[in-house]
Amino acid sequence: MLLKGIAAASGYAIGPAFIMEEQHTEIERRELPAGEVEAEAARLQAAVQQAMAELEQIKEKTAAKLGEHEAEIFATHILVLQDEEFIGQAVQKVRDESVNAEFAMSEVTQMLVDIFSSMDSEYMRERAADFRDVSKRVLTALSGQSGTSLNDFEEAVVLFAHDLTPSDTAQLDRSKVAGFATNIGGRTSHSAIMARSMEIPAVVGTQNGSEAVKTGDIVILDGSSGIILVNPDEDTIKTYEEKQAKYMKRQEAMKLYKDKPSITADGHEVELVSNIGNPQDALGARNNGAEGVGLYRTEFLYMGRDNFPSEEEQFNSYVAVCETLGAEKPVVIRTLDIGGDKELPYLELPKEMNPFLGYRAIRLCLDRKDLFKTQLRAILRASAHGNVKLMYPMISSIVELRAANELLAETKAELDAEGIAYNKEMEVGMMIEVPAAAIIADQLAKEVDFFSIGTNDLVQYTMAADRMNENVSHLTQPFNPAVIRLIKMVIDAAHKEGKWAGMCGEMAGNLKAVPLLLGLGLDEFSMSASSVLSVRVLLSRLNREEMKQLAEEALNLETAEEIQYLIVDRVPAIQELTI
Amino acid sequence: MLLKGIAAASGYAIGPAFIMEEQHTEIERRELPAGEVEAEAARLQAAVQQAMAELEQIKEKTAAKLGEHEAEIFATHILVLQDEEFIGQAVQKVRDESVNAEFAMSEVTQMLVDIFSSMDSEYMRERAADFRDVSKRVLTALSGQSGTSLNDFEEAVVLFAHDLTPSDTAQLDRSKVAGFATNIGGRTSHSAIMARSMEIPAVVGTQNGSEAVKTGDIVILDGSSGIILVNPDEDTIKTYEEKQAKYMKRQEAMKLYKDKPSITADGHEVELVSNIGNPQDALGARNNGAEGVGLYRTEFLYMGRDNFPSEEEQFNSYVAVCETLGAEKPVVIRTLDIGGDKELPYLELPKEMNPFLGYRAIRLCLDRKDLFKTQLRAILRASAHGNVKLMYPMISSIVELRAANELLAETKAELDAEGIAYNKEMEVGMMIEVPAAAIIADQLAKEVDFFSIGTNDLVQYTMAADRMNENVSHLTQPFNPAVIRLIKMVIDAAHKEGKWAGMCGEMAGNLKAVPLLLGLGLDEFSMSASSVLSVRVLLSRLNREEMKQLAEEALNLETAEEIQYLIVDRVPAIQELTI
Repeated sequence: MLLKGIAAASGYAIGPAFIMEEQHTEIERRELPAGEVEAEAARLQAAVQQAMAELEQIKEKTAAKLGEHEAEIFATHILVLQDEEFIGQAVQKVRDESVNAEFAMSEVTQMLVDIFSSMDSEYMRERAADFRDVSKRVLTALSGQSGTSLNDFEEAVVLFAHDLTPSDTAQLDRSKVAGFATNIGGRTSHSAIMARSMEIPAVVGTQNGSEAVKTGDIVILDGSSGIILVNPDEDTIKTYEEKQAKYMKRQEAMKLYKDKPSITADGHEVELVSNIGNPQDALGARNNGAEGVGLYRTEFLYMGRDNFPSEEEQFNSYVAVCETLGAEKPVVIRTLDIGGDKELPYLELPKEMNPFLGYRAIRLCLDRKDLFKTQLRAILRASAHGNVKLMYPMISSIVELRAANELLAETKAELDAEGIAYNKEMEVGMMIEVPAAAIIADQLAKEVDFFSIGTNDLVQYTMAADRMNENVSHLTQPFNPAVIRLIKMVIDAAHKEGKWAGMCGEMAGNLKAVPLLLGLGLDEFSMSASSVLSVRVLLSRLNREEMKQLAEEALNLETAEEIQYLIVDRVPAIQELTI
Repeated sequence: MLLKGIAAASGYAIGPAFIMEEQHTEIERRELPAGEVEAEAARLQAAVQQAMAELEQIKEKTAAKLGEHEAEIFATHILVLQDEEFIGQAVQKVRDESVNAEFAMSEVTQMLVDIFSSMDSEYMRERAADFRDVSKRVLTALSGQSGTSLNDFEEAVVLFAHDLTPSDTAQLDRSKVAGFATNIGGRTSHSAIMARSMEIPAVVGTQNGSEAVKTGDIVILDGSSGIILVNPDEDTIKTYEEKQAKYMKRQEAMKLYKDKPSITADGHEVELVSNIGNPQDALGARNNGAEGVGLYRTEFLYMGRDNFPSEEEQFNSYVAVCETLGAEKPVVIRTLDIGGDKELPYLELPKEMNPFLGYRAIRLCLDRKDLFKTQLRAILRASAHGNVKLMYPMISSIVELRAANELLAETKAELDAEGIAYNKEMEVGMMIEVPAAAIIADQLAKEVDFFSIGTNDLVQYTMAADRMNENVSHLTQPFNPAVIRLIKMVIDAAHKEGKWAGMCGEMAGNLKAVPLLLGLGLDEFSMSASSVLSVRVLLSRLNREEMKQLAEEALNLETAEEIQYLIVDRVPAIQELTI
């Protein structure tokens, strides 16, 4: 049997399945005699205290084992338990209705879960899970048991559950649990994120995994592809054991590169940095060996809420990243890239026939000067606290670049007048994602400090093929000769003016693309944190001069297939690093 | 007072207004004694005969005065009168219901008008007007009057009407009617098309013009901008009289260029051809001095119907154009460019988030080989009857070009096997409208006979700005340095391989663009028929070597505004020709 889920944390787990049963304890409503009500309220408060003590312990253990960031969820849960709206209401219910603590607790929890579950924002919906997790812990305490709910296993098993709470996940014993699979959840659900930090292979969203598999079935869980094989034959097990050994060896080898410089075999150094969406991601970037942040997508600050974030909120969020990484590490903050497919409920934008060719990013910011200048102020102020660089998205003409720079100069003058500190030498760059910008990169390079090539959009516009549309996905070709030529034009233009050129699209973390990009002269590669180490290992095996030659040859080829074939053929290390 | 409508036919009309009143004769139902029914049916048939005779006369006069093409609408009306479904039903109604002919005629007309008016296709909706026009003429004949309905005016007036039928328009006496305005209609309605052929200045779609203006008001009608000034002051009248004189002088001067070659002052010859949508347009192209067709948009053959046109229908349509123009004149037939914003009701395509970046044109044709090969057969067969060239739209990679050429080779082999004639030397080219194609034009040029640059799409993709979206319309910049550089790349690439490069986007007919395009080396300019003469006059005033120098300078500028300013400053003839 083969189950297909969402690849949540890479690696292979091979072993017997263990199905974690849901504890379906029916909670009954019991009315209490008047004299027992206060004792019941006190019992509830004692259970809350016990749960809180347990959470403190888990939090400390997790922080020690996995780091402060991973422990944050438990700090959140402690805050939830301290929330008067929540626990206070449950206690009040015991008193008002003379009912048992379990019933009061579960009623109030259900009400809050219902409210949060119905919200539009994914962020708010996830908060429902926090209430459920915390409530479960209090109910367990009320039953007189300890909250540590996972059984001790005899041997390392592959755990199947309907869902795992963050505390379930954090308490998994790596020596007993080879991997886990859940029926629900997505790649960004808490348990998936935690599995990646803990390096436990995991597949989520299997839909019915915990029902289809029986305890004792032998399973192979492939956390890289999201596939689970149930009771496979011996040959398959052997194949996967080999894959697993190779994978582990590679992981070990890669870890040695975490704090090494990003340098080729012939001593050419580049910068390997990470794309992040929020301050928490900065830790993941650092833990994965990124030398800084090449793209901080600030739009997430604006999403899942009812109004614009204040200058102060933005400032704090930007400074937090600098603090996590260390003041000398570069942090490239991209100004708001909203519109297109990314909507804000509180910013009414017209419906567009072709949103990818529409009113978005810098186009909108140049019209909404209030909004834009608030962000520019926050970024400038943050520049006094770290190695902050500012980057504009979606520039398509020099007129736009000049308009944006003019607003930046205005903002600087205002800060000067107010005596507020900022880095007067802060680098200002722009993304190259519109073909026009790549074509006039020589002119733009005179007026910026750096370029960062956004390949996802650049490919989409250059090929005139929506990258979300599967009918034209065969045209989404980062290796198309036209795209490679544009990349070359951009890098050459930057270098001619003594500026640097980076890339923050998917291509920068693609092992097949790295040799070519190195050969074309790319200075900075920004990618998702999980790709940094493998790219660094690959770079260490490459020879810059050979890659220049490779790039020359690639530029003479006529199809994306030929170019990819050339690279893979010339650089066997790519195959070795792709398991 | 100022009225704003749709510019339908350029030129200026100055004079007293004449409001054409609608003839609202109420048609009553009268029941007839049994004995009179047959006589009434005969009276209806006699009226139909009279209407037909009138139409024959108008048709002949129109053909003599304006040409066969303009007379076609009356041939259509005669066909309508011969249609048994229409007249037969009216006669039947007289007999079945024993009612008067007027009532029977107007009831049947209304039913047909209702059916056609409710159709989705604009083409079918326009057919409703034919029934209305024909019916009006029969009703007039039944009343014992002649169908010539326009009064004789004492002096040349500006005519205002709710609407004008094609026969009303065709019968306008140019010496009595200086111009006309209608409340309804669009730029492609029959009366607008006819006004352009007759060179009567006209504004359509004024909404309430015939009510807002009174007979005797002095009006200035500007058919180039769609503006009507009512009772303007003396100075304004004087200004417009000067404009009018200048306009007429220019029109006269331009006519001298109708059969002249398209040649610069220093003897460099280029090709001025026209974009057409259907075989009828070919006549307009010829009458306006076009040297052939640079873009035949075949999708109109596929629209406004329930199924694909057969090979035979397509063949006939292609050959018709060759016959109209003469066998030696080039006719560039573009293969089907459907999808995106152009839908076919009988070809079910998925709804797309960004149709301009979607599944369209060659992308679709390469999947729907049946459909594509039928068209290729029809074009190949037509190539035996004229100077036909074939052109693929929306090519974005060399892989697509090769796939299309492979299907063409297959089709040729099939025709060979069947012994069917076609021009084995037929030129095969492609449009350059995707940035990727422009960037790899050097590679593509080796495998085609010509390029034609589609600037509308090329600008839209290069700037990543939907040309239909007014929020980003400021970015739709054909003069953007990035676009100009791409155009240069395409022309240079073609010439390096000894191929020719044309342009069939709006830019080719833009007087401001012509000097620059000439300087860049463009070989063929394809535009709407009405622009051909003014472009030819402009070319005759330009010096090729000077324009090369101009292009060099333009390529060093940084903004669209600077480039346009340079051109207008350097070529005063543009201002003279723009009135």
